[in-house]
Amino acid sequence: MKKKLSDQKLSEKYIIDKFFNKLNFNHKGTFNFKNDAAYLNISKDYKTIVTTDTIVEKVDFFQNDPPESIAQKIMCFNLSDLSAMGSKPKCYTLNLSINSKIDLIWLKKLTNRLLKLQKKYKIYLIGGDISKSKEISLTATFFGQSKLKYILSQNNCHLGDDIWITGNLGNSYLGYKLYKNSKLKIDKKKIITYKNYYLYPSPCMFGYMAAKYINAAIDISDGFYGDLNKLLDEKFGAKINKKLIPISNNLKKIILRNRSLITIDNILNWGDDYEIIFTSKKNNRDKLITLSKKNNVKLSKIGEIIDKKGIFDDSFNVIEKINSYDHFF
Amino acid sequence: MKKKLSDQKLSEKYIIDKFFNKLNFNHKGTFNFKNDAAYLNISKDYKTIVTTDTIVEKVDFFQNDPPESIAQKIMCFNLSDLSAMGSKPKCYTLNLSINSKIDLIWLKKLTNRLLKLQKKYKIYLIGGDISKSKEISLTATFFGQSKLKYILSQNNCHLGDDIWITGNLGNSYLGYKLYKNSKLKIDKKKIITYKNYYLYPSPCMFGYMAAKYINAAIDISDGFYGDLNKLLDEKFGAKINKKLIPISNNLKKIILRNRSLITIDNILNWGDDYEIIFTSKKNNRDKLITLSKKNNVKLSKIGEIIDKKGIFDDSFNVIEKINSYDHFF
Repeated sequence: MKKKLSDQKLSEKYIIDKFFNKLNFNHKGTFNFKNDAAYLNISKDYKTIVTTDTIVEKVDFFQNDPPESIAQKIMCFNLSDLSAMGSKPKCYTLNLSINSKIDLIWLKKLTNRLLKLQKKYKIYLIGGDISKSKEISLTATFFGQSKLKYILSQNNCHLGDDIWITGNLGNSYLGYKLYKNSKLKIDKKKIITYKNYYLYPSPCMFGYMAAKYINAAIDISDGFYGDLNKLLDEKFGAKINKKLIPISNNLKKIILRNRSLITIDNILNWGDDYEIIFTSKKNNRDKLITLSKKNNVKLSKIGEIIDKKGIFDDSFNVIEKINSYDHFF
Repeated sequence: MKKKLSDQKLSEKYIIDKFFNKLNFNHKGTFNFKNDAAYLNISKDYKTIVTTDTIVEKVDFFQNDPPESIAQKIMCFNLSDLSAMGSKPKCYTLNLSINSKIDLIWLKKLTNRLLKLQKKYKIYLIGGDISKSKEISLTATFFGQSKLKYILSQNNCHLGDDIWITGNLGNSYLGYKLYKNSKLKIDKKKIITYKNYYLYPSPCMFGYMAAKYINAAIDISDGFYGDLNKLLDEKFGAKINKKLIPISNNLKKIILRNRSLITIDNILNWGDDYEIIFTSKKNNRDKLITLSKKNNVKLSKIGEIIDKKGIFDDSFNVIEKINSYDHFF
């Protein structure tokens, strides 16, 4: 039988000792979580980059989603933001709000997945907070380091820049549709693969790897069109070859089989892919391609920055479908 | 009529532009909140101290509490932790989870109080996040700076150290009791004063001011006995002169009039005073007193660190009432 937290008299100290202490990797500045604060160890030649995200039950994840998925999402959302700033991840704080339905196994699964991802991205937990609340929510604040001159911004694209995008779009969208029990026609073997794109997103760290060649960058969290629009900063426009927008052949086939249920425009207005859109001078092309191959990152050059405001296709038709996920209530 | 957020189509951008942009004080590293990350400007000779706290509706504040009180609490809890680390506050991130019951006036009041406190403590907002949730909750992550050698810890008291405490205890406890409509006998004019101690707590920044004279420090957020116990770190004991524990004369009179409803032990097991307990070498006494007078901080020397484990009164009777607020569910 599952032991709910409410079945036992648990102190915050017990939860920290049993589940969270393993995440500080014995870094000195964490004080082994015995203080209410910690200090950062960022080298003197670097700036500390900060980003923070909150995810809430029933908004960013479903009730009863696996804790491993929740761990992966809070990590991915923040790491992706650091990447878009051209920053190397160092450490993070975690504020966890949980209710009495949570059991010890849930906490174990959550923290074990955090541990696994910490090892992958070479980061450690420096502190945090555990609160009671009706709804589960997690806030993480991530710290990275960058040389000041390589800190990237969304608002620094230049006229004539190439527009690049990492990875493939739409896998997470299809996963979400399948997760919501949509009646899509799809090979059964592929269902879990796509659901996992949605449940276990991975950040693309190419923004950090290629920072010195990038003028402006953003991660796709609100939808390709909406996020590209932010890059343009109300100053420029973009000419895009829609055929070059990277969508896997497998997903393209699924779209063809399910025309009434899923369109390319759905995909391009959906976030959660956590790929990076960035702009770069034309003469960086070779360097970027070499770097992407070396790091096994798929890279597509899909267009360029123009001075006419708006997003256009190759024949200069306006692409109007901008429905970025920015409505709030 | 009040305009609820749900009455209007509000974007996160609108909320940020209208209410939060005023809080970045145009610091460069904030990118005027147009990026998903920011960078810290901490001088090279200092370490960056980090602390974080989440407050949740119905746990840390009541539904319908004034937004000014919520702003004050999230600031106080974090500033108090920075003070206990001996750290000078610099900036913070704020993650706000709100529901559709919130109206624009609420947001205005919250951010205006944040603005007021930012000016008082000379800090600015570097970034954050706004999420939807059923319950209102706020997470703030605060950044301070300290020279490495002056970073304070809870776990560094020395045998023979004096034990000091700032300010007065219990005002917040009485305020809480009054707020909960307790039938305490108290002069009506004083009711609002005490409620305000609870609703609008102020951090004591003496930990930062006196860092170079302090061996170990903690802010009282979980109750005097519980927090003192943490300072002792399972290595030492404390001999306390209970008469010297600072409680205002006015509160003492109220306790006498309400013996069945409120006791000194209630007060000493209650947090929310946000005063600092710290230990210091005996030969720092004069320096500490001078510093406290200069900064108008009340300071009381209440005991000393001894090698016999436990908390004792002056006649070496064990003070047993340690009920620190650390049960979780």
